[in-house]
Amino acid sequence: MAGHIREPGRTTTSRALALLGAFKPEDTSLSLAELCRRTGLAPATAHRIAGELVAWGGLERTDGHRYEIGLRLFEIGMRAPGRRELADVAMPFLETLHEVTRENVYLAIRDGHEAVYLHAVTGTHAVAAPAPPGGRLPLHATGMGKALLAFAPPEVVDEVIAAGLTRRTPYTIAEPAALHQALAKIRRDGYAAGNQGYFLGAVSVAAPILGPDGHAVAAISVVVHSVRANVARLGPAVRTAAKSIARQIDTQPSH
Amino acid sequence: MAGHIREPGRTTTSRALALLGAFKPEDTSLSLAELCRRTGLAPATAHRIAGELVAWGGLERTDGHRYEIGLRLFEIGMRAPGRRELADVAMPFLETLHEVTRENVYLAIRDGHEAVYLHAVTGTHAVAAPAPPGGRLPLHATGMGKALLAFAPPEVVDEVIAAGLTRRTPYTIAEPAALHQALAKIRRDGYAAGNQGYFLGAVSVAAPILGPDGHAVAAISVVVHSVRANVARLGPAVRTAAKSIARQIDTQPSH
Repeated sequence: MAGHIREPGRTTTSRALALLGAFKPEDTSLSLAELCRRTGLAPATAHRIAGELVAWGGLERTDGHRYEIGLRLFEIGMRAPGRRELADVAMPFLETLHEVTRENVYLAIRDGHEAVYLHAVTGTHAVAAPAPPGGRLPLHATGMGKALLAFAPPEVVDEVIAAGLTRRTPYTIAEPAALHQALAKIRRDGYAAGNQGYFLGAVSVAAPILGPDGHAVAAISVVVHSVRANVARLGPAVRTAAKSIARQIDTQPSH
Repeated sequence: MAGHIREPGRTTTSRALALLGAFKPEDTSLSLAELCRRTGLAPATAHRIAGELVAWGGLERTDGHRYEIGLRLFEIGMRAPGRRELADVAMPFLETLHEVTRENVYLAIRDGHEAVYLHAVTGTHAVAAPAPPGGRLPLHATGMGKALLAFAPPEVVDEVIAAGLTRRTPYTIAEPAALHQALAKIRRDGYAAGNQGYFLGAVSVAAPILGPDGHAVAAISVVVHSVRANVARLGPAVRTAAKSIARQIDTQPSH
């Protein structure tokens, strides 16, 4: 993103992509002025390219002359095989974990230094810890992220530390030594516990879905309100589900 | 799509969008030759624009020099508010319906003459009736589609009939009079029963989520293996869930 803001118009394609990339997870709609501010495009250029995106279905125009992401991009985005194959295999196990725990359950993968959430099973006991599918959270601040990081190649840990362990709550692990210690414990235990490191009031238990090389291909988590948390009870359930998914992936025909 | 195939290169933006649109729901990856064939673009042009899409994250290149839809498009597509707001409200009710029925549960909206599937709750009792999120099915051939069509503006029914009621299985409703009769029954009953009209062996029960104007804003369905089907038992459960979702939408702040 940052690159697109600084270099808004190298090619027409990059301008169109910058317009799509201007939408953040929390944006419902953006005005033309907001699109221009975020992309650095001139109003006439942004208007013309946005018009093409609307004609194609990638953007939609609201009654109030604002733009929102169109249904067609949802349809095409769901074809990303990295997400689809994993989500298809994991979904029944996530459902079972949700039924057993009655808590919100998530599936995420690591992309660079962030966890990208692929799927959520959320019930009526909603915890104030929104991790919607398509959202990203930092690796050091949640149970999910730590489960992914503990079972990532070692250089990823170094990179995450080098990038800075941003403190989000008083509970965030912000010291390299503390992070190394936490990751070592996660590798011993086989699961990660998150304690309000990103969202106050939310506690999580996460376990990696390990590939044949011992690295995490994904992770799953259960997120619980901190007053209800029973990590000792949740750990085995989350680990069992994660191992079941890993076994299922192993038996899938590869591409 | 058809328009893009016939007019592949009006603008650079339309070429980039044609490349993304070349991916069908069933495609895991496409070669450059396949992309050229589907978009009508010259190999050099397709290669250059695909390279820009790869740099941005909209496409990914596989080890075998093929292209697949990238994680970034999944992330942006999930920001489509038309999907997100509805899926967020519906999800807990879909979970409950899945728990009660133990069957696969779906949420879809009407887009033109097709049902676009937004969310699925699938368990281990998988039925051979794949309707993955982001997929499309015709309105006349499934319970979901008929529930959407029965509560659509009347001109939509005329348009669907004018477009041709393609027969997919021996059970598909392919006669206009039979479709009108089926839709009238659905309006009386408040739910639609699908009987192997699209997938042999799959039976469904679907109910509309009605807006204040009496038209369907979406619909939900339970899909069951035909040998397990108990439509009389499923109808009230599906209707109850659909009405609960509609009530919840009514109480949401509007945008």
